[in-house]
Amino acid sequence: MATTTVTPDGRTLALGWPDGREGRFHAAWLRDSCPCPECRHPSGQRLLDSVAIPDDVALASATAGNRAVDVVFTDGHEASFDDGWLGEQVAPPAPRPRRLWDAEIAQELPVERYEDVTAAGEALRRWLAAVDELGFGLLTGGPTEPGTVTRVAELFGYVRETNYGRLFDVRSVIDATNLAYTGLGLGPHTDNPYRDPTPTLQLLHCLSSSAGGGENTLVDGFRVGEELRSSDPAAFEVLARTPIRFRYSDGDTELEAERTVLELNERDELRAIHFNTRSAVPPRLEPEAAAAFYSAYRTFGRLLGSAEHVLQFKLEPGDLFIVDNERVLHGRTGYSEAGERHLQGCYADRDGLRSRLAVLSR
Amino acid sequence: MATTTVTPDGRTLALGWPDGREGRFHAAWLRDSCPCPECRHPSGQRLLDSVAIPDDVALASATAGNRAVDVVFTDGHEASFDDGWLGEQVAPPAPRPRRLWDAEIAQELPVERYEDVTAAGEALRRWLAAVDELGFGLLTGGPTEPGTVTRVAELFGYVRETNYGRLFDVRSVIDATNLAYTGLGLGPHTDNPYRDPTPTLQLLHCLSSSAGGGENTLVDGFRVGEELRSSDPAAFEVLARTPIRFRYSDGDTELEAERTVLELNERDELRAIHFNTRSAVPPRLEPEAAAAFYSAYRTFGRLLGSAEHVLQFKLEPGDLFIVDNERVLHGRTGYSEAGERHLQGCYADRDGLRSRLAVLSR
Repeated sequence: MATTTVTPDGRTLALGWPDGREGRFHAAWLRDSCPCPECRHPSGQRLLDSVAIPDDVALASATAGNRAVDVVFTDGHEASFDDGWLGEQVAPPAPRPRRLWDAEIAQELPVERYEDVTAAGEALRRWLAAVDELGFGLLTGGPTEPGTVTRVAELFGYVRETNYGRLFDVRSVIDATNLAYTGLGLGPHTDNPYRDPTPTLQLLHCLSSSAGGGENTLVDGFRVGEELRSSDPAAFEVLARTPIRFRYSDGDTELEAERTVLELNERDELRAIHFNTRSAVPPRLEPEAAAAFYSAYRTFGRLLGSAEHVLQFKLEPGDLFIVDNERVLHGRTGYSEAGERHLQGCYADRDGLRSRLAVLSR
Repeated sequence: MATTTVTPDGRTLALGWPDGREGRFHAAWLRDSCPCPECRHPSGQRLLDSVAIPDDVALASATAGNRAVDVVFTDGHEASFDDGWLGEQVAPPAPRPRRLWDAEIAQELPVERYEDVTAAGEALRRWLAAVDELGFGLLTGGPTEPGTVTRVAELFGYVRETNYGRLFDVRSVIDATNLAYTGLGLGPHTDNPYRDPTPTLQLLHCLSSSAGGGENTLVDGFRVGEELRSSDPAAFEVLARTPIRFRYSDGDTELEAERTVLELNERDELRAIHFNTRSAVPPRLEPEAAAAFYSAYRTFGRLLGSAEHVLQFKLEPGDLFIVDNERVLHGRTGYSEAGERHLQGCYADRDGLRSRLAVLSR
């Protein structure tokens, strides 16, 4: 049972638990959190319009019992809060698990067998948890049938259809409209930064790979971004503050979006990486700013390509990888036009993946 | 023909045009912008790896002709830039057209007839341009067949499928899992802030509306956000800096995302509004911060609901509206459970819309 103290102005409730935990709760927050059926629909959605809570909302009284803290507001509304729930509010919510990695992740790849993951259950949960934590995951031993890649996406979410279709074929073609469809090597990059919103997940499935070369590379952009923040804070700042435009166009498409290479949230944490030298439009800056930008860009690009950061492997027919496309960059080494290399890819979004993971973890 | 001056260190090219325009271009930017076939694939994508441009890249010479400026770099690479293109680089790129609006927009609604827009061509271009500029658009005189809403989305882009399906029905149902599926009024809100990424476009199509009430409301969140920034900068700052979690869950779904009510870009311009009191989790803050947050939240919420900002209208059967769901909030007045009100909605994304608009504007 908690001890309760209401400040004289009725604005704050202080709770203390026998185990030493303490918390201070503002009257407006308590009013907003009221779980009664008048304030909260059975669906869990709030019925109370938070905006309608009066400016001067205050507590008339607070009483703690063994299981609940009962509160009366000065407007007469009564709320009863579960004691355990209130206790959980004292600690900040646990951040989403995130583990940064470098090339040594090769020793403990997040890989599952296709047949286990498609059976759903624990293997799928484990695989999705790895993608959530590391920003990538591998499947092995799957079929080589066209369309497999979207079936994997549908195990946890929804395909994001684009002008490239629900899925797209990656192989050398004559008169390619996209460098992905040539045998050229591609440095580590994120896909489609010219799209709004950027696809948050990308899957690539290997149907055949008899061509020489064409190994896959993955780099943890958040790991490298944090390294840049430590080693060269000025360069980090330049890449976080300089908007650049990304562009793609063909006969019936014209996509353009403006983003920073390093996208930060309101707490200056990395929210996304947008790095794609093929589609970036050189930013028009005064010469001094241009010098600083290109220096920072090169520094970051070299860090991304350094052997200590790059995981390299080769997808065999039936293998698949998924990346968080706003965190983990992917690329490939060049490959010979003799022999065959055929991948299929599709885009999807994080919300579906995390929802499925949360439901499987219930 | 432009005059050319290269600084002694070879790092900067200054150009002056007969009409008085002047521009200074850094050597790295010029190298990065080289349009030669070695540096640029016929698809328009860059072949040159920008990161491989040497730190000390410099200009050996620059010569202007009538149509082009020819540059030789110290590493021997030669580039020829179109004079007109260089001249365009002097001015910053025009920002995307954006017009903020309030309730008076009722005098000049961006409305088109369904049959004109589905014929594609100029009416579709005009409609998409209005959505891009104002953040919403209306269609009238369309069919009342189920599935119309996704057919409209496919006129310009791709449906974003979610756990609600490719489309969802909005009408009163027994044991609703979402307040949208009751007769309750809904204040102005953005949809699905618990999703990552948030759907950037929402379409709602009216199949029947004989129930009393159920009028539609739209508010320009960017207009109201800018008003808050002017009238109460401290409140603006609180809403731009306080992350809150949005959450939705049902039997097979568990979605959660953390966002600020006002999302700013790296230039502190409004990038998105996330306002949904039904799914917002009250943010755990120390009492002083909670007081500031709730005060700012109420101020913003009241501004959003004020008559001067709210456009109110009623969709008739066959009508449809589309909103930029990260800018324009939508809502509805309550409606009676007698009579019928049946809407269908779907989500889509801005990139497809803007691509189609750009292609139609070629």
